[in-house]
Amino acid sequence: MARVVVDVMPKPEILDPQGKAVLGALPRLGFVGVADVRQGKRFELEIDGELTDERLAEVNEMAEKLLSNPVIEDFKVSVVA
Amino acid sequence: MARVVVDVMPKPEILDPQGKAVLGALPRLGFVGVADVRQGKRFELEIDGELTDERLAEVNEMAEKLLSNPVIEDFKVSVVA
Repeated sequence: MARVVVDVMPKPEILDPQGKAVLGALPRLGFVGVADVRQGKRFELEIDGELTDERLAEVNEMAEKLLSNPVIEDFKVSVVA
Repeated sequence: MARVVVDVMPKPEILDPQGKAVLGALPRLGFVGVADVRQGKRFELEIDGELTDERLAEVNEMAEKLLSNPVIEDFKVSVVA
């Protein structure tokens, strides 16, 4: 069993309303000195069996086809365990 | 300027309907061999000035008070750049 993390973030040029909402709320809670906040998604996948290169390529395909919207989001796949 | 990432995931014992929905969709797209999927949030914060221990403690406080719900979620703070 292997654990793979897929991090999905909005592309830099894309407006990130959720991130802006968090950025706006921080001073109201007394937190200052935060220049920007971006919010995305994090997926933790438990993969059966051994994590071969072929399996890792499949995870990349899952990320592209299901876990992210390639038009507005970037993703990064990392093997954790 | 420092970049800090806050990863927020549902606690293991908490039902994760979003993760289950993704898990259920994978076979329909032809992907097999994924035992479990958990979905959470990822925040990237740009912090002004130097990242002192005090500032890092503040980010932990932000994570606890605003970015996560400590009743159902765990968070992890990591310094990226």
